[in-house]
Amino acid sequence: MRSLLLLTAAAMLIGAAPAKPKLLTPNDIVAGAPASAWKTIDPDDLLVMDLANGGRVVVQLAPQFAPVHVANIKALARSNYWDGATVYRVQDNYVAQWGLNDSEKPWPKGVTPKPPAEYTRPLKGLAIKPLGSPDPYAPGAGFVDGWPMAYSPKAGWANLAHCYASVGVGRDLSPDTGSGGELYAVIGHGPRQLDRVIAVVGRVVEGIDKLSSLPRGTEALGFYKDKAQYVPIRAIRLASEIPASERPAFEYMDTGSATFAHYLRVRANRHDDFYIRPAGGVDLCNVQVPVRRKV
Amino acid sequence: MRSLLLLTAAAMLIGAAPAKPKLLTPNDIVAGAPASAWKTIDPDDLLVMDLANGGRVVVQLAPQFAPVHVANIKALARSNYWDGATVYRVQDNYVAQWGLNDSEKPWPKGVTPKPPAEYTRPLKGLAIKPLGSPDPYAPGAGFVDGWPMAYSPKAGWANLAHCYASVGVGRDLSPDTGSGGELYAVIGHGPRQLDRVIAVVGRVVEGIDKLSSLPRGTEALGFYKDKAQYVPIRAIRLASEIPASERPAFEYMDTGSATFAHYLRVRANRHDDFYIRPAGGVDLCNVQVPVRRKV
Repeated sequence: MRSLLLLTAAAMLIGAAPAKPKLLTPNDIVAGAPASAWKTIDPDDLLVMDLANGGRVVVQLAPQFAPVHVANIKALARSNYWDGATVYRVQDNYVAQWGLNDSEKPWPKGVTPKPPAEYTRPLKGLAIKPLGSPDPYAPGAGFVDGWPMAYSPKAGWANLAHCYASVGVGRDLSPDTGSGGELYAVIGHGPRQLDRVIAVVGRVVEGIDKLSSLPRGTEALGFYKDKAQYVPIRAIRLASEIPASERPAFEYMDTGSATFAHYLRVRANRHDDFYIRPAGGVDLCNVQVPVRRKV
Repeated sequence: MRSLLLLTAAAMLIGAAPAKPKLLTPNDIVAGAPASAWKTIDPDDLLVMDLANGGRVVVQLAPQFAPVHVANIKALARSNYWDGATVYRVQDNYVAQWGLNDSEKPWPKGVTPKPPAEYTRPLKGLAIKPLGSPDPYAPGAGFVDGWPMAYSPKAGWANLAHCYASVGVGRDLSPDTGSGGELYAVIGHGPRQLDRVIAVVGRVVEGIDKLSSLPRGTEALGFYKDKAQYVPIRAIRLASEIPASERPAFEYMDTGSATFAHYLRVRANRHDDFYIRPAGGVDLCNVQVPVRRKV
């Protein structure tokens, strides 16, 4: 058996019938979650990016946290602005970035070229499920409507956290906030230093591996050196624009549910067979709110 | 200028001569570090893995934290145990794993088949540079001799933290601790829940992108489905076994130095042109102790 050497072997041992009662893994809790613990994502909030190589990347947008940027992104998708777009930057342990890059293409109707700095929003009015562990980047951390958030009760702000697969808006130096035409997804350790400095507009809910496995760019900041290396994008559409029969559908776990509270507790205290020492805490970005295909 | 849209544009604006004094970035501090702030890595502590596709991955071993496992790894390298090894598992946002997988090849001389559980070591005797930010996984976090550590002053343990590019020893269920024959490198958000559960033996100091950009395995836990997908490894050697003229050499920043203290402060408080709001804190795994080629 020395050759198995799995990191999380417990998941594969179901059926091995241990004498003691089985301790639940996070995956067990997701698999057993009642229908009431799930919320369907509005197809108008799903951005579907099809790469020319056949890979599909689906982004859940967060209009409640960056409304002007997200409205821009939707207007760009609906007007086929991204025709000819590519992934032109892949920086290891940081981001993959796509769009038209050096294009001077005019903005289509409905786009606000200079959006406000939607880096934070007021904490007031948000129902937060606290993480229950300390956060290095903010006085508070937790979950709002399925999203990882950092916040300050004293200063009154809240922001979407930069975690693995988070999607943000590329920008130049301040006061530029970016239009939404150039987007990036995080493909490394959550670069939380970007929190409150860049507009986070969503997260990849399927196909992040299609970006994270791309060759890294060799120029400064991970830009590809030659345009021949750019990864062509066939289409970027909203799911709501795709015929219903072909439309991908997703649901996320309600972070206000008892099921999520259980999931969060177990994430912080893995006690299944592999985890000989429960951590007693968890990083905001390691919780990974469950999102799955809706069947 | 809307088309530039860089995430960290400040680095490219040197020479643009702003009127105010230039605020240092972490990279500036690394570039300006005195020779006294660097420590050379012993070539006997560098594991050089050459992939058949030409990519090279260099791992700095940490014998001071997992002596028996590291001694095993050195004995395996010296005896060419890994002839025929492959990367056979790549799980997105988690690990790339390599070795002989299902082989029953006998252990060479000098290998301890059942090492002790070197998941922690005593805190006593370690000179720690504290992180200065809270850590979700341990009462304390900081740096020892160039390594990110978590620790408990009360319980008296310290452990190498699982960060991006950390290298650990694959194992089966406890009490198995793994031999060192199967190793993995982290290619996603630091899976700190593995701290004190697995032996960390080092970190990739060059070429992590050669692992992180590999196609993801589609079987459970990211194992490749077909052996034809395995990524062949040409050789795994210690740098000390490579002729001096071809031997790669590396140095890391002394985490006890004033330069590192400055670097750490700026990491927690980015205040260059792009960062409009310094975070006031930093995640242990986002500090990234500087390591570079020694010329």
